[in-house]
Parts: sequence; C-alpha cells; structure tokens
Amino acid sequence: MPWGTVRIRVRYEETDCSGVVYHANYFKYFEVGRTELMRSLGAPYRELEDLGLLLTVVEADAHYQSPARYDDLLRVDTALAEHSGARVRFHYRVFDDATGALLCSGSTRLGCLDQKSGRARRLPESLQTLFSSGSKSIK
Amino acid sequence: MPWGTVRIRVRYEETDCSGVVYHANYFKYFEVGRTELMRSLGAPYRELEDLGLLLTVVEADAHYQSPARYDDLLRVDTALAEHSGARVRFHYRVFDDATGALLCSGSTRLGCLDQKSGRARRLPESLQTLFSSGSKSIK
Amino acid sequence: MPWGTVRIRVRYEETDCSGVVYHANYFKYFEVGRTELMRSLGAPYRELEDLGLLLTVVEADAHYQSPARYDDLLRVDTALAEHSGARVRFHYRVFDDATGALLCSGSTRLGCLDQKSGRARRLPESLQTLFSSGSKSIK
Amino acid sequence: MPWGTVRIRVRYEETDCSGVVYHANYFKYFEVGRTELMRSLGAPYRELEDLGLLLTVVEADAHYQSPARYDDLLRVDTALAEHSGARVRFHYRVFDDATGALLCSGSTRLGCLDQKSGRARRLPESLQTLFSSGSKSIK
Repeated sequence: MPWGTVRIRVRYEETDCSGVVYHANYFKYFEVGRTELMRSLGAPYRELEDLGLLLTVVEADAHYQSPARYDDLLRVDTALAEHSGARVRFHYRVFDDATGALLCSGSTRLGCLDQKSGRARRLPESLQTLFSSGSKSIK
Repeated sequence: MPWGTVRIRVRYEETDCSGVVYHANYFKYFEVGRTELMRSLGAPYRELEDLGLLLTVVEADAHYQSPARYDDLLRVDTALAEHSGARVRFHYRVFDDATGALLCSGSTRLGCLDQKSGRARRLPESLQTLFSSGSKSIK
Repeated sequence: MPWGTVRIRVRYEETDCSGVVYHANYFKYFEVGRTELMRSLGAPYRELEDLGLLLTVVEADAHYQSPARYDDLLRVDTALAEHSGARVRFHYRVFDDATGALLCSGSTRLGCLDQKSGRARRLPESLQTLFSSGSKSIK
Repeated sequence: MPWGTVRIRVRYEETDCSGVVYHANYFKYFEVGRTELMRSLGAPYRELEDLGLLLTVVEADAHYQSPARYDDLLRVDTALAEHSGARVRFHYRVFDDATGALLCSGSTRLGCLDQKSGRARRLPESLQTLFSSGSKSIK
C-alpha cells in the first residue's frame, strides 16, 4: 500500500472557538493529501477532470485522537488502499509534525463519474495501471 | 429515537468547481442540525459551554447519495441515537426539500470534555435526563 | 435605496480560535444578503446563471465594529446601491439581532460576465428594470 | 516597505460552482501571507497571542483582476504598510505563480487588543521595533 506525504500548516480560519481545528476541516486536509498523492503517482487529479471525468466522494469517515491548533505544522500521510472498476479508496493519517502524535485518521471512497452525464465510469486504464504500480513509484 | 428538523439553503461558497456542494460541508450541516436539535430539547449547546464543558467530535462519517446545488433548500433531520456517561451519538439525514430525495446520511459521536483540563467528563445529569426524555419533547 | 433583510445564525465553524466570527466569513453573510435581496426583488440569482450569465465580485470591503459569537442571531441588511451597464454595487450592514448593535458594514461591486467567454456583458434589461424599481417592491 | 512571499496551492473546496476561487477566500490567503511575513520578521503571530494580545481585523478590502482555479499555484506577496500605536496595515498581492499575472490585491488594517478585556492595546515595543526595521530583515 503506497503512502504519500504532505505537510500543511494550520490556518487561523481552520480553528473554531473551542481553540482547535474544526473537525470537518480534516476532510480538506485529506483532500490535499489525495491531490498530492495522485500528483506524485504521475496522475494529477486535474488531468482526470480535463478528460471529462470526476472523482466524487461517496463515503467519508474520520476518527479524532488529539486536537491541532493554529500554526501547527501537520503531516498528512495518504495511502491508495484499493481500487476496482469505478471505485477507489484512500486512507489518511494526520500527525503533529513536531511531536509525531497521531491526531486524526480516516478514509474516503470515491466513485468515478462522467462530468456531463453524471453516470458511473470505469477509471481510465492508464490510471488503474498507475494505481496498481503505485507502490513502486512513491516511497 | 427523537428526530429534529431544520432547513438550510445552500450558499454559493459551499459549492465547489464540480458544480455541487463540497462533501465536507455536509458535516457543517450536521452541526447545524445538532445545534437545533439540542435547542429544541431545551439544552442549547452554548449553555453547555457556559458550564465549562465541551462536546468534541470523536468520530464522524457520511454517505453521499446525490448532490446538492447552489440555492437548493435542504432539510436536515437529526436524531439523538444513544448516550452514555461521557459520550453521545447523533444520526443525520439530509434531504432535498423540494423533491424529498435523500442526499446524504451520516453520524457523529461526541465526547464531553472539561474545557480547561481537556479531560473526559460525564454529561451533566440534567442533560442526560433531557436526552433520555427527548422522544417526548420533540415531534 | 431599497434594503432587504435576512437573519443568519452563527455556525460553530464560522468562529475562530479568538472566540469570535472569522472576519472573512462576513463576506459569506453579505452573499446570503445579496441572494435574498435578489430573490425578494423577483430576480433570483440562480436564474441569472441559468441565462448563461454570472455576477462576479470585482471589489469588496468590510469595516468591523464589534465581534459576533457562536449561536448569535445576526440580521443582515442589504441594499442595491447603484447599477449601470455591466456593474452593480451592494451595501451591507450586519447587526446583532438581539441588541441591535452594528457589527460590520461593507460593500461589494459585481460585474456581469458571460459564463462561457468570460467577457463583460450588460445586465439583462429585465434585471435593470427590477433593480431600478426595487425601491417599490421591497420594504 | 518590506515584502514577504509565500506560495499557496488552490484547494478544491476553495473554488465555487462558477469554477474559480470564491472571492472571500482571498482574505484567507492574505492571512497566510501575513502569518508568514510576521514569522520571517522574527515575530510569529502565535507568540503575540501567547502574550495575551490579539490582532483583530478592523478593515479589509480586495480588488479582483483575474480568477484562479483548482490546483493553481499562487504567489502571495505581503507588505507591512504602516503601523502606529495600536494599529498596523498590511498590503497584499496575489499572483498566478506560473504566468505572473496579478489576480487580486488588497489590504487589511488590524488593531491590537487585550484578549481578556477586549480593549485596544499598544503593539509591544519589540514588535514595533521589528516592524520598523522590517525592511532590513526580509528581502
């Protein structure tokens, strides 16, 4: 299972009045992780959209261990967990980059759609190949 | 299981460049539903914070059926699913108010914390009572 | 100068770790005000987009007097200030609905564009008429 | 007038259904620029908050020239424009990093407050010194 890594610094507006990062914002961090993993695999997500396709989130979950605060540097590890036909699942782990503490883990399952018709479409062959060989191309 | 209902109109910034509501924003709708359910039960969430407590999300999940668009009117149904000691779970269903179509369902589990120490705390007795009798006070 | 009014309850995620509503979120409230003013004028913004047009913000400013907190009920007053050819300006005032205190005022200037070409377009005649007669149709 | 520079990649949720970055999100980019400028000056904003102070936005404005899209790399230039007593103003310019095109410019004026009392406070002497000598410490 290939993992990619990206660092994100917590922005002021991502916190809430309890003093820590608002829980829903971790799904935005997950998306940044997914975007960078796909770029590192050689399949930038934007290029998929240029082909008239779309990856739409059909399931999402997160488990929160410990809070993050304004200006903390986070490390987001993203893994391509499994894929088949029109579906792909990613796993995420968000760490405090300074302490190494696990803050949040989660996953999203995405479905490939045709942008115009909105109908399910198989992932392009080239992407499936990249996904399958992902473990070799990223460390 | 008591359900509460609130209507939300989709804001422009809640959509993304695929043309529909960004998936993470449903967790914000869930929170609005939770806030209004607690208010209708006679236990506004803000009052809990005034007591020096906090409900923090420890788990969240969502399943996406169908997209929502700018200016759509949504109906969010929220249920208090279960509670015990320091934990409470809510379930959510988001519908297109015009067509009645189910767009998204999900749940969040929250833990009660002391704001200062960050330690787990039992839900106040009065809140547990309200939660237990919730089915009678809301339709 | 016609004013329209809408009420908005502050959501948890709209606050930041200083305890109050994050300043940029007032521009989202402004947009809700603008959306509801146009609806009340009989020209829902969505219908403009259905015509292949777009109103894009070209200038925005805000002046902050006093902070808002989670669960506060706000009153947003929106006025159509002036319009001509391809441009329209709105003014906004956000009040604490409980106390009547002015929290924030601001304005946005928008330009009408063709969605496909991105070129400036005159506001549709019908919309200009509605904008001009706005003072009569809303209180 | 010292300028600092930071790069930001546009996130999916920062776009809206018109296909481009939602206008209010530029104020978030401005804040990232301000955060990084203060860090490079040797005065991380978080340290100011640790002193029991707060910089709160009292005025904000933006002028939009050209849109940004998902996954675009932006360059945010931030300048410390002027400061006196309890007030400081920053200027911002957001460019498309690939083409060099100016997308948005703006400014924010911030006031220094005591976190507890909410009263205006002079900027700490050390910060005023850093702000005054800023032109030497950053390129």
